[in-house]
Amino acid sequence: MIQFSPLHQESTCQARTGRLTTLHGIVETPVFMPVGTLGPVKGISPDELQSCGFGLMLSNSYHLYLRPGHQLIADMGGLHQFAGWSGAILTDSGGFQMVSLSDLRHITDEGVTFKSHLNGSMHQLTPERCMDIQMALGSDIMMVLDECPTHPCTFEQAREAVRRSTQWARQCKEAAQHCDQALFGIVQGGLDADLRRWAAQALVKIGFDGYALGGLSLGEDKLAMMAMIEATIPELPQDRPRYLMGVGLPEDLVEAVVRGIDMFDCVIPSRHGRTGWLFTTTVRVMIKNAQYIRDESPIDDQCSCPVCQKYSRAYLRHLFVSNEMLGVRLNTIHNLWYYGRLMKQLREAIQEDRVIAFREHFYNTREASPRSTAYVEKVSVGLTGRNGRSQKEQEL
Amino acid sequence: MIQFSPLHQESTCQARTGRLTTLHGIVETPVFMPVGTLGPVKGISPDELQSCGFGLMLSNSYHLYLRPGHQLIADMGGLHQFAGWSGAILTDSGGFQMVSLSDLRHITDEGVTFKSHLNGSMHQLTPERCMDIQMALGSDIMMVLDECPTHPCTFEQAREAVRRSTQWARQCKEAAQHCDQALFGIVQGGLDADLRRWAAQALVKIGFDGYALGGLSLGEDKLAMMAMIEATIPELPQDRPRYLMGVGLPEDLVEAVVRGIDMFDCVIPSRHGRTGWLFTTTVRVMIKNAQYIRDESPIDDQCSCPVCQKYSRAYLRHLFVSNEMLGVRLNTIHNLWYYGRLMKQLREAIQEDRVIAFREHFYNTREASPRSTAYVEKVSVGLTGRNGRSQKEQEL
Repeated sequence: MIQFSPLHQESTCQARTGRLTTLHGIVETPVFMPVGTLGPVKGISPDELQSCGFGLMLSNSYHLYLRPGHQLIADMGGLHQFAGWSGAILTDSGGFQMVSLSDLRHITDEGVTFKSHLNGSMHQLTPERCMDIQMALGSDIMMVLDECPTHPCTFEQAREAVRRSTQWARQCKEAAQHCDQALFGIVQGGLDADLRRWAAQALVKIGFDGYALGGLSLGEDKLAMMAMIEATIPELPQDRPRYLMGVGLPEDLVEAVVRGIDMFDCVIPSRHGRTGWLFTTTVRVMIKNAQYIRDESPIDDQCSCPVCQKYSRAYLRHLFVSNEMLGVRLNTIHNLWYYGRLMKQLREAIQEDRVIAFREHFYNTREASPRSTAYVEKVSVGLTGRNGRSQKEQEL
Repeated sequence: MIQFSPLHQESTCQARTGRLTTLHGIVETPVFMPVGTLGPVKGISPDELQSCGFGLMLSNSYHLYLRPGHQLIADMGGLHQFAGWSGAILTDSGGFQMVSLSDLRHITDEGVTFKSHLNGSMHQLTPERCMDIQMALGSDIMMVLDECPTHPCTFEQAREAVRRSTQWARQCKEAAQHCDQALFGIVQGGLDADLRRWAAQALVKIGFDGYALGGLSLGEDKLAMMAMIEATIPELPQDRPRYLMGVGLPEDLVEAVVRGIDMFDCVIPSRHGRTGWLFTTTVRVMIKNAQYIRDESPIDDQCSCPVCQKYSRAYLRHLFVSNEMLGVRLNTIHNLWYYGRLMKQLREAIQEDRVIAFREHFYNTREASPRSTAYVEKVSVGLTGRNGRSQKEQEL
């Protein structure tokens, strides 16, 4: 099982630090989980992932169920042993991939019927089977099966998904009751704050080891996403971790942490690494750009990652334009390191009750782009303190 | 410059150990050089390469000349600095790739005109330009420009290539005379022993820091390759390293070491790693095969590489069939480690005057296949001792 202890609560916002104790190590929150779809984060060894500061990763049940199969992984001693990862693992339910990758699926109250994106074979996933798969994988944290409606959806679709997801959550808890893996519920509800509150209350009544916010970061307005976080957080128990699924860009993490989120997962640092989009404290480096052809400086001169210690932008560009595998790997390591460091900085700032100042510093050091400026203006409006008043109101 | 000191000469065959001192470290011979086409061995970091036991690698002038350009690399501080490799580097002349990769080339006494395989642009390489490129890269060892006729070729073609290569070698030496990088000559001559001897004598007269055997391992009979080595070695000075270019499989290395070769390069360990062909002391493991689906054992239980210490064949198969980049990397590390260990075993065996016994042990521990058996029978017939008599004759 896991144990979660909230540590420090910021006075001016919902941000908090905490400690998540798992059978595979202790994880400080807020935490970002890199995504190891098939076991490893693409191209990255477990040792490298750990050296980037990560002790908890996410793996995709859908992919592992289809290939090599959850039963095989169980027979090989579980996912930790199979993949050589000594840290903790959270597995998703597979529900999201079924909807996003399968070109044919059918959802009823019984579960999801879908067609494999690999070979077209048909599969059915029920809440019980979803638990069986994740129990076979042996993750530290399992997620309930949920229905994640595509964006945009009508209120009726969102309500129906909440109704079904709540029922499935209950079935998942039942199916996993004798298991020593933790189980998180998932709050759905589209972009309707009342629906989100209702969903959260229903899940809390069933009782889970942690609560996730699902169905966000699907292309909706960022402000709407923040509003959903703000609506949901007050409904969740203080002594359980809160996990924002599939988010996001660095600014999303900062904003969501400020609003009380403890856990994140996203493919962005690794996927952007593969496409040569590198994060720095100041600018966005698109490494293929001609401006880096003869650039002897590291990706980020404020970064102490092994890539920035050793390689120039010129070399990384050479590797990237030559499709050399090592380039992808070095880019990914840098981006992971950036995310790991950002989370550490956020934790330290919260611990010292200065996360709002950190957030300002975070935006100020970045080269302004019209998009990010608009974003900052938008999200900062919505921020409310612990007492429910907006930051602006409190300042007055 | 480099310094080469022969250390121990086996009494029953031409095998010998030596020490190659470069500006980037000391290398014990016989040595295998992994191929870092664009800088890195595909997917492998400099640290990993070093931890596999390699202190000398080969890089391809042709590829680096076309992309990112030798002048850019020179401006970035040379290839060692650019690629973050603190070991020694041998660069080839680029001649072989021009012939093998370019679909249009024209060879005259002036040099080679060829069309880039990347963008179709036309380039001309003269002996002088070949030296300029390698001097810009700043390798420890440069290779002369040579003409490597395709296999099979007529005696006349081979003779013409030797004539031209000898002239080019002379020009290369002249062009590189004020440079502190070592320069190796390349013995051509097709499959004609007299031509090889003549070519070797001509090169020795010009005088080089080492001598390579080129134009072999192009699909000719293995016995013919061994005969060419046997014809050439006696013509080469004892105090210079002898390098068999582009070879080869483990059995080729063993046979060539026994015949007096000090240096090798080949893409086999890395390329086979990428295609899932893994070397072991006993069997050839084609990792995609269904027989490994649930195989919990390491690739080779006699191997102490980091991959065999941590991962099962089942996991490596999963990574391979899923096209997961980490799989390619782990396979390559294992194969490189295998090659590094084989060379170490050969050096130790020579040092103790038991390389012929080691060779027998090497074949005996491998699972017999009709192909390898035929090979062993073939190559062992041709082996001659230092006095020029075959092993069989000596035993009688």
